[in-house]
Amino acid sequence: MAAPTIDVVGIGNAIVDVLAQADESFITAEKLAKGTMALIDEDRARALYERMGSGLEASGGSAANTIAGIASLGGKAAYIGKVADDLLGKVFAHDLRATGVRYETAPLHGGPATARCLILVTPDAQRTMNTFLGASVEFQAGDIDRSLVEAAQVTYLEGYLFDRPLAKAAFRQAGEIAHKAGRKVSLTLSDPFCVDRHRADFRDLIRGHVDILFANEAEICSLYETKDFAKAADAVRGEAEIAVLTRSEKGATVITAKDQVSVPAAPVARVVDTTGAGDLFASGFLYGYTRGKDFAHCAKLGALCAAEIISHFGARPEVKLKDLAAKAGLA
Amino acid sequence: MAAPTIDVVGIGNAIVDVLAQADESFITAEKLAKGTMALIDEDRARALYERMGSGLEASGGSAANTIAGIASLGGKAAYIGKVADDLLGKVFAHDLRATGVRYETAPLHGGPATARCLILVTPDAQRTMNTFLGASVEFQAGDIDRSLVEAAQVTYLEGYLFDRPLAKAAFRQAGEIAHKAGRKVSLTLSDPFCVDRHRADFRDLIRGHVDILFANEAEICSLYETKDFAKAADAVRGEAEIAVLTRSEKGATVITAKDQVSVPAAPVARVVDTTGAGDLFASGFLYGYTRGKDFAHCAKLGALCAAEIISHFGARPEVKLKDLAAKAGLA
Repeated sequence: MAAPTIDVVGIGNAIVDVLAQADESFITAEKLAKGTMALIDEDRARALYERMGSGLEASGGSAANTIAGIASLGGKAAYIGKVADDLLGKVFAHDLRATGVRYETAPLHGGPATARCLILVTPDAQRTMNTFLGASVEFQAGDIDRSLVEAAQVTYLEGYLFDRPLAKAAFRQAGEIAHKAGRKVSLTLSDPFCVDRHRADFRDLIRGHVDILFANEAEICSLYETKDFAKAADAVRGEAEIAVLTRSEKGATVITAKDQVSVPAAPVARVVDTTGAGDLFASGFLYGYTRGKDFAHCAKLGALCAAEIISHFGARPEVKLKDLAAKAGLA
Repeated sequence: MAAPTIDVVGIGNAIVDVLAQADESFITAEKLAKGTMALIDEDRARALYERMGSGLEASGGSAANTIAGIASLGGKAAYIGKVADDLLGKVFAHDLRATGVRYETAPLHGGPATARCLILVTPDAQRTMNTFLGASVEFQAGDIDRSLVEAAQVTYLEGYLFDRPLAKAAFRQAGEIAHKAGRKVSLTLSDPFCVDRHRADFRDLIRGHVDILFANEAEICSLYETKDFAKAADAVRGEAEIAVLTRSEKGATVITAKDQVSVPAAPVARVVDTTGAGDLFASGFLYGYTRGKDFAHCAKLGALCAAEIISHFGARPEVKLKDLAAKAGLA
């Protein structure tokens, strides 16, 4: 088996974010579930955009954010995901390549527009996401670049892909290619509602097919239908080889069949926007993992990257994470 | 003469910004003049975008930033400027209207694309701007909404408009309409290179046609061809009724025929990106002016708004400036 030439390849929905501040009253009036992600169609996207405040456009997509973070840490990273042949698609591709990520998925011609996510950030820094999936779910098995997946030490998959059957099939296929090549498969559960929609499928997939699972407290509790984090943590033990459970300001816990390691959250002067916190935690953890660091080191690096991303608007790093890691003695 | 129903109407180049971080070495390699604005064509814009880092897209345009700031302070504001009928044009219009600004200029069909400005922010928080003017300079006299200008207490014009003859003519026309209606005309010099390109025209215009002039140190020194700020300040005295000279961390000075008032810069925890500093100073000053406040109050409000904008990426306020002003006792 050849040594991997790429650290992590991410597969996910290729999305451009539109971030705007919103009052709590706006969230209520629009009947949104704060802190979660809702799928919306193009008409709803147009109407909601009309009513929301002045925005910032920035490349997003959960796995793409993670991959951009890995590149910013100095890792070799690649991405597979579908945009349309339009302006936002060009912005998405530019931003990813500009961070040093290998991104070669062919854009979609003549179909829906590039996916966008309308993100409302409330004064408590929570983000409420409304996604029009557009071209991102026209993604299918043929878009999986087998040689990329075989060359990557870790293939990282976002749970959001489960929302469409074609993407889900491509997702399973990527996992199989990776394992056949002797590589690792990582999955993030993405959102508690996403887990709700696909609970049985996720449980099946995790048992035996996922080596490194990422989930936050709400997601892991949803997966095992409990309100008790300790019970959920017990339930996941041994299901995935490594389960990385993030708990916002309560830090993170890494669980394996025999072991459990917890690290605190990294300090943040002012939490501005929590968009991308989980995505960037995964960047730090996976970068450390592909460098052979121990779990505590990996989780501390994850916490450091998450702290950077929540200190400003948007889900892509504003500083070179490699420098940040070096300063913190975690390079 | 009817009382004004609008505080300020701004006329300028309608531009969407693409902000990215850049090292000093990038600025040197691309032969850019740091801290200034260069005009570029579409090919150069494409090539520079290709090479620059991951970006944030945000509505910009000097006068549009000022006007958005006035609306954020609680003022009645309107804007006249030309976008194309494309995605960036829709973003620009949305963002302005979402802040409460009246914006009704018809978009351009079948011509160049919406203007964009590629802004490189160096680690010292300085911004270097590269503008593809696109649809913004297809703006002409017919686009000036006479009733809007007549209804506004102040008509605010950006010097950047001087870069194309049609826009310059529209600019002069707006000034005449405003003065005939007994209103005030305000001008910002925009950029030292812009002043270089149009020095004689600017001097002519200011003498007798401009009531409130905004300029930073480099611009006013360029206008009077001196390196000595005190000499430039002496030269402008009495040329415009009120000259508002901003000097970054050295604060600002307001000069009239008989009077001179200086205020310090407002404190900023960390200067992140100076894009929009002058634009937002003008927001605060003009808001105070239209409320009948004295010059010191106006300039302090200007400094407060400038301090907010340089504390984050982008040239549009991230908080409601009205709340900020109230907290500072400047409402």
